[in-house]
Amino acid sequence: MKRREFLKIAGFTVFGSTFINPVSYINSKSITRSTSKMKLRFYPYTLELKHVFTVATASRRTTPVMMTEIEYEGVVGYGEASMPPYLGESHQTAADFLSKVDLSQFDDPFKTEEILAYIDSIAPGNPAAKASVDIALHDLIGKLIGQPWYKLYGLAPEKTPYTSFTIGIDKPDVVRQKVKEAEKFKILKVKLGLDNDKEMIETIRSVTDKPLRCDVNQGWKDKEYALRMIEWLATKNVELIEQPMPKEWIDEHAWLKERSPLPIIGDEAVQRLKDIRKAHGVYHGVNIKLMKCTGMREAYKSIILARAFDMKVMIGCMTETSCAISAAAHLSPLVDWADLDGAELISNDLFDGVKIIDGKVTLNNRPGIGIIKKQ
Amino acid sequence: MKRREFLKIAGFTVFGSTFINPVSYINSKSITRSTSKMKLRFYPYTLELKHVFTVATASRRTTPVMMTEIEYEGVVGYGEASMPPYLGESHQTAADFLSKVDLSQFDDPFKTEEILAYIDSIAPGNPAAKASVDIALHDLIGKLIGQPWYKLYGLAPEKTPYTSFTIGIDKPDVVRQKVKEAEKFKILKVKLGLDNDKEMIETIRSVTDKPLRCDVNQGWKDKEYALRMIEWLATKNVELIEQPMPKEWIDEHAWLKERSPLPIIGDEAVQRLKDIRKAHGVYHGVNIKLMKCTGMREAYKSIILARAFDMKVMIGCMTETSCAISAAAHLSPLVDWADLDGAELISNDLFDGVKIIDGKVTLNNRPGIGIIKKQ
Repeated sequence: MKRREFLKIAGFTVFGSTFINPVSYINSKSITRSTSKMKLRFYPYTLELKHVFTVATASRRTTPVMMTEIEYEGVVGYGEASMPPYLGESHQTAADFLSKVDLSQFDDPFKTEEILAYIDSIAPGNPAAKASVDIALHDLIGKLIGQPWYKLYGLAPEKTPYTSFTIGIDKPDVVRQKVKEAEKFKILKVKLGLDNDKEMIETIRSVTDKPLRCDVNQGWKDKEYALRMIEWLATKNVELIEQPMPKEWIDEHAWLKERSPLPIIGDEAVQRLKDIRKAHGVYHGVNIKLMKCTGMREAYKSIILARAFDMKVMIGCMTETSCAISAAAHLSPLVDWADLDGAELISNDLFDGVKIIDGKVTLNNRPGIGIIKKQ
Repeated sequence: MKRREFLKIAGFTVFGSTFINPVSYINSKSITRSTSKMKLRFYPYTLELKHVFTVATASRRTTPVMMTEIEYEGVVGYGEASMPPYLGESHQTAADFLSKVDLSQFDDPFKTEEILAYIDSIAPGNPAAKASVDIALHDLIGKLIGQPWYKLYGLAPEKTPYTSFTIGIDKPDVVRQKVKEAEKFKILKVKLGLDNDKEMIETIRSVTDKPLRCDVNQGWKDKEYALRMIEWLATKNVELIEQPMPKEWIDEHAWLKERSPLPIIGDEAVQRLKDIRKAHGVYHGVNIKLMKCTGMREAYKSIILARAFDMKVMIGCMTETSCAISAAAHLSPLVDWADLDGAELISNDLFDGVKIIDGKVTLNNRPGIGIIKKQ
């Protein structure tokens, strides 16, 4: 689909890449009914990455996101769908999905359980598009109440974890440069799964002894090899291994979990709440991301479920603006490990929000998810 | 322990049975520190039942409760521990437990996750005493924010269920009289498990065809007998069977679950969050009560967990004032079945709160758990 054709379908007016004029999606029903109705707006945006980003499966320089706004009685909640291309969602799929959303049937944004069940029922899949509604709704509710979400969750803001910062797969001199740029972060996350895993680790270890987390993104295709690699990594101050083998390899991961000296965390294998149960006995923990599990509400439930199974919990992200990162950050006092560097990887953030200060996820006292749109 | 001695130990001043002058529990630390501290007060109270209440295991005319209050910046949240004697808690155990609670170490009542983890860590057991702190804290937080808890949970208040009303085991003419008095309730709960089960059912069926729920309170001691009884009850417009056999009978309940034409709900077998996992595969559903699971926060988590296991959920109660009943009612839009008649069974309620209107649990818009103390 050509760009002009897409904009026509979605009803957008877009000028350049950063100045955006969102157009309300108001169906005929909502125009004729009470003004105390929620109005959903959305517009596409493209995140520009500071560095070309390479993982075991792909390389890229941009990430398409869809920004949402829900307005109710003059208050606006912000949301975001981040859609790395390999996950199957796009500006087009998100626009198609969000065009089907009719919030005018709900008289009260506080009925989140009902509203989000409706959103989930509109179509299968589309987890990021669904999350963009969930996040905007949470931001709206927090603003209507005048409270930040960490307080509504009953959490202590000082209990936020330190986040890791991701070093993509690259040549040794670039990797060394990235490690230097990541000075403020206390923990690094290393992407593995190509044929230069040991080189990557040794390059990083030549310049820093910070704790590392290794994300293999399903890159290892042999369980014995995976175990040998993990045993080697365990001698290199590595904290955990994320998704070492293909997500469909249940028995192989269970086998590895029994033998691994490091915790094995399921990421691609764990998308929605229902996957947490399946991950029990297969992984030591799960990586929960708003863009996988449709947003804050299901993420909160997923954390509760994982804890009931005595599993470890990481909260992760895609490349995202400070909108979706801030939303995830409100849940972070509940987790063992945070990987919320998404907004640090981009050069054109739209929001001021939760900050990473000296490597620590740092919440503010603003209501909702705690963000302000940059002018 | 004699009454006078008990009052001395607990530091209470009690005049008569209904006029009560709560005495603050303030330890030396909290006196010398900031005034923006939570203060916990508690006092014993005795609920008077309208009818002598007989279940498979006991009969009684009163229920001891401990009322709590948490005050913070001039706002008071109310809580309650209901302690039917056969469950092991008492005025004395609750006073002992609550005397150990030091809330002055927390600077903010919103840190509920942390505060309630501390409460739970003070001593094992004492679920009702723990719930009395949890409920008061929830009431306080809702009042500080100015919102009722059903809104904070994101629930639709009109989605509350109808509650059952409990008919205790008694002689046919008393049973018929009780059924008449229960006119406003759409569903009756019948206590079974003695030797007159069929007589009870036939007596009720002689005067009403309302749906029945049967609570056996572990009364049947033979799985084949239990199955035959359930098959018979299934022909009598019975909706479900609660705790048919002793709570320790795991395999027998799993056997019964496979064969029963009616859903089998675990009650005595399911106390805390961790028991939900164990109940999966053994019962079709679970009866969650604040007094078993230490309050609203764990109850909410328990419901999420039960749903993740595709289990049915009932929310139940003890004989309680409108304080604890109202607290449970805020969660009721999430459940399949409510059994929240506890305040209807007593003649000396202390609060005006959530009401049962034409048999339906009916929430109000007041902040917190929605109760006002009667003068």
